Amino acid sequence: MNHQNLHTNRSQGSTEPRQKRYAAQNPDQKPVKAPRKNTKAHEQHRAPVRIIPLGGLNEIGKNMTVFECSNDMFILDCGLAFPDAEMPGVDIVIPDFSYVLHHQDKLRGIIITHGHEDHIGGLAYLLKNVSAPVYASAMTIGLIKHKLEEHGILNKVPLHVMEAKKTIKMGCMTAEFIKVNHSIPGSMGVIIYTPAGVLVHTGDFKVDFSPVDGERIDLGRFGELGSKGVLALMADSTNAERPGYTPSESKVGASFENLFAKAGNRRIIIATFSSNIHRVQQIINMAAKTKRKVAVLGRSMVNVIATALELGYLDVPKNIIIDIETINQYAPEQLVLITTGSQGEPMSALTRMAMHDHNKINITPLDFIILSATPIPGNEKHVTKVVNELLKSGAEVIYESMYDVHVSGHACQEELKLMLALTKPKFFIPMHGEYKHLVKHRGLALEMGIPKENIILASIGNVIETDGNSMQIVGQVPAGRTLVDGLGVGDVGSIVLRDRKHLSEDGLIIIIIGIEKNTNEIVAGPDIVSRGFVYVREAEEMMVQAKQIMRRTLDDCTYAELREWSSLKTKLRDKMSEFIFEQTKRSPMILPIIMEI
Amino acid sequence: MNHQNLHTNRSQGSTEPRQKRYAAQNPDQKPVKAPRKNTKAHEQHRAPVRIIPLGGLNEIGKNMTVFECSNDMFILDCGLAFPDAEMPGVDIVIPDFSYVLHHQDKLRGIIITHGHEDHIGGLAYLLKNVSAPVYASAMTIGLIKHKLEEHGILNKVPLHVMEAKKTIKMGCMTAEFIKVNHSIPGSMGVIIYTPAGVLVHTGDFKVDFSPVDGERIDLGRFGELGSKGVLALMADSTNAERPGYTPSESKVGASFENLFAKAGNRRIIIATFSSNIHRVQQIINMAAKTKRKVAVLGRSMVNVIATALELGYLDVPKNIIIDIETINQYAPEQLVLITTGSQGEPMSALTRMAMHDHNKINITPLDFIILSATPIPGNEKHVTKVVNELLKSGAEVIYESMYDVHVSGHACQEELKLMLALTKPKFFIPMHGEYKHLVKHRGLALEMGIPKENIILASIGNVIETDGNSMQIVGQVPAGRTLVDGLGVGDVGSIVLRDRKHLSEDGLIIIIIGIEKNTNEIVAGPDIVSRGFVYVREAEEMMVQAKQIMRRTLDDCTYAELREWSSLKTKLRDKMSEFIFEQTKRSPMILPIIMEI
Repeated sequence: MNHQNLHTNRSQGSTEPRQKRYAAQNPDQKPVKAPRKNTKAHEQHRAPVRIIPLGGLNEIGKNMTVFECSNDMFILDCGLAFPDAEMPGVDIVIPDFSYVLHHQDKLRGIIITHGHEDHIGGLAYLLKNVSAPVYASAMTIGLIKHKLEEHGILNKVPLHVMEAKKTIKMGCMTAEFIKVNHSIPGSMGVIIYTPAGVLVHTGDFKVDFSPVDGERIDLGRFGELGSKGVLALMADSTNAERPGYTPSESKVGASFENLFAKAGNRRIIIATFSSNIHRVQQIINMAAKTKRKVAVLGRSMVNVIATALELGYLDVPKNIIIDIETINQYAPEQLVLITTGSQGEPMSALTRMAMHDHNKINITPLDFIILSATPIPGNEKHVTKVVNELLKSGAEVIYESMYDVHVSGHACQEELKLMLALTKPKFFIPMHGEYKHLVKHRGLALEMGIPKENIILASIGNVIETDGNSMQIVGQVPAGRTLVDGLGVGDVGSIVLRDRKHLSEDGLIIIIIGIEKNTNEIVAGPDIVSRGFVYVREAEEMMVQAKQIMRRTLDDCTYAELREWSSLKTKLRDKMSEFIFEQTKRSPMILPIIMEI
Repeated sequence: MNHQNLHTNRSQGSTEPRQKRYAAQNPDQKPVKAPRKNTKAHEQHRAPVRIIPLGGLNEIGKNMTVFECSNDMFILDCGLAFPDAEMPGVDIVIPDFSYVLHHQDKLRGIIITHGHEDHIGGLAYLLKNVSAPVYASAMTIGLIKHKLEEHGILNKVPLHVMEAKKTIKMGCMTAEFIKVNHSIPGSMGVIIYTPAGVLVHTGDFKVDFSPVDGERIDLGRFGELGSKGVLALMADSTNAERPGYTPSESKVGASFENLFAKAGNRRIIIATFSSNIHRVQQIINMAAKTKRKVAVLGRSMVNVIATALELGYLDVPKNIIIDIETINQYAPEQLVLITTGSQGEPMSALTRMAMHDHNKINITPLDFIILSATPIPGNEKHVTKVVNELLKSGAEVIYESMYDVHVSGHACQEELKLMLALTKPKFFIPMHGEYKHLVKHRGLALEMGIPKENIILASIGNVIETDGNSMQIVGQVPAGRTLVDGLGVGDVGSIVLRDRKHLSEDGLIIIIIGIEKNTNEIVAGPDIVSRGFVYVREAEEMMVQAKQIMRRTLDDCTYAELREWSSLKTKLRDKMSEFIFEQTKRSPMILPIIMEI
């Protein structure tokens, strides 16, 4: 694939002037000016708009989409994904940025919808390589600041706090922020006014009629856009498999009320996602009501709460939050601890408490522990382990869904239909989800009367082009995953992963021989070393036999064969492999090393 | 821990003669004779009964319990567990048999409740080391035969087919089989008449009032036992967290009726657990009704269906099952395929179909696929991957719980309470589950009025002793896990696993040097080889530097230091480790190898 050239197959659109149609759809907006350079007037009207998802399709995480028109480009979100079992040792996964890097002269800015890792976690890595201003809500900017600071690039990035209804010009496109509900404050959708028409991207959203902070999703504005004409809707598919409506976050508050009563005179410990400030607010409200003090544990929880407090996203009565160092001054019934670790993360505060490995908290039967979260697929076993260990210390642990101690931050089927009903888009692109989620979301759009040919199930790297009349996938740009392991970004690839996988499953046998370079005589070895294969002290006989087989193989070699190291290695590897498989039915990695003396 | 001696702390029980109490409780049974040897008459009455779980407590899988009295011992179930992410490369996990091996002179027999892997999967490994007759239902024996044949020991094991209500003497104890419902035919609970009193073990069970084969759990007999007096109940805790009742297996049949209609003229492919013969029966019934032929895919599915047919557990109309080789002679609407792979197992038939890697089946939009199973925790990602790939081929895939395409085989809370209500045990031991399940099950027993001190939350290896009046944990025997990897049983231990884990996360760097044995001169190397660390071609500079550091380290060594290989290795390892961590923030395994020339 040539990174520089984008292979497209453009269809010719309508001949109606874009400028006029655009103006009609957006009376409140000033008409978009012509792109600044290299574009003749008659070309401008025909310049198609391109949507290029670089992450978040056919996967959960690393959400990132590029919007392009003429010589302008902006990015919506830049997230990370967490590695799965096929990526041992990998810390995080970020999108392949090469398309952006090769077109950074066109980049006008980066918009972030909200501050979750799968929307901001790749940003620092991108901004080490490209320069662009970042636009987001105050909460989101607050969290981005932490990230950029950690990476030592805070000073070089212009950060702009945006509010709902505010717009920002991105060359020939204009983006407007629109308030949505989600499980972190300051979540936004984005309306994009383009020469081809209006695009609406929901970001991650749900419809909450009784949000904790009182700020409801701006359904009216979505409806208004729908009435004026939306060219395409791009919407969050995370919960497209779930029927009905996602309950309001306030429902969790009601559960907390019951559970605080149930806790009686025990200490309450609640684990939740650090970014769920609304949840934290509800815990603080209940603590105030029951005259308990609140202490906070876990680095990310401490950071996010500090940011939220600083920016006014949390409403905290005086003297209710206490330093963790002072908790011994209070009786159990006077305390609520808020902690990280709701996913059973091995290094988190809650896991360390469960394993008796926390230096400040000792779990006893006087603890009442609430896991206010649902395990993310893949984390079930970790969570179960933590629950088991907490129970063994005699604590009561509330973790089932039956207690309503968690609600999702994503829209379920009826909310997704509501969004389709309000925006009435001509085209529909389900975003954020595995293929099965996108297919389900398509099913909902079909039910809502959108024709199948107007629904685009895209993959990352697809170039979706529209001129306002039609919309289709017209090409492909480089896209994929970049693995981050320690300081290395991209240096762990498929070969390294394949080796790690192989090593982890059957271990390794090393065969070392020393050959005198002039005479081709074997002057050392064969020696055999193994790791992760068998416990050698209990398999001595087999290892002795293996050594004998290597020696015999070498003895049988002609002088010429001893000179051809590459084929000699292959021969040793094959013989060893055959013997070991016959003995054990295992296939460890065999690594013959020949030293020249 | 001394394997030979069992440390106990026996409490003295009531003085009432055991024989009398036993007879009173079990009028239908002949009085149990005195143990055969080494037991004086007055000791016999005081001989306590011991229950020793060797698997299935604080874990899911490898169920195994030893019952002992005087000089007699028998085993109930002998299962396997599947390895988790902490055991890379391991095929299966079986119980530590050492306690049984050291007391095999006392072993009178092995009873198996049903034919699932977590109850029979360890049996062949045990029977390679001990001799004992095996007792189980016809279906279970049929499946055990396959296992023993694979291991080449079918001829040396006496297998006895048992029916419900039949008894078998195990020295001074007698076991009676009792019919229960579960997701495999021929599932049994076991009643154990002992000198101390009657023990009831439910095996895996649910209460199904409309089972597919018409054979309901024998609630009457459980009730009868309760009326006469049950000393202790041991019951399945798998679903102790779930409220309500588990639906009848027949409910799935009703769903199939709707789904077959929905499939229309498409080919139907249904994936389910191979052992769920009742599910297979319902599929065959629907196929007959809709005039479709049935073909079977997947080795274990073919085997289990063959066994079930042979033993009369399946009722199949003539000519409905066809050879998989002939399916091309039929139109899609004339076919139902039953296949393995409902858990997304990488090598299963369904996964291969999904990955376009199956030599007989090609998935197209003319396929209607039902995953008639719920993912077992840990398998969610595999299942999702298979669903995504099947959808990409254009097939419709039914996989949500909303369609009722699966029901559990285990009793939910109300059924567990029913079992407690019927048997009215004096003591209660929740079995089969993680700690959190056992705690929930204890909660249900408390609700049912069993005093807390009469409920025993045990761990594997615990020796639970009862004299009929009291019951407590009095000691500990060796218990744990034995890992099976290929042909190796127990040769992969914690050191090997730790190495595999380390290798998988950061890979390996090997440093090789050759030292002349007389002069202590370095005559070869240092050479550096890495695997699973970085893609070396893109990290050449770092590897060159690493080599230089090794050379410098060696140059700085005194003559004496070069003779002390063990400390020389440590020195090389530390220097390399430090350099690599500084460069990459990674900690690969560092393996210095010194060759003597």
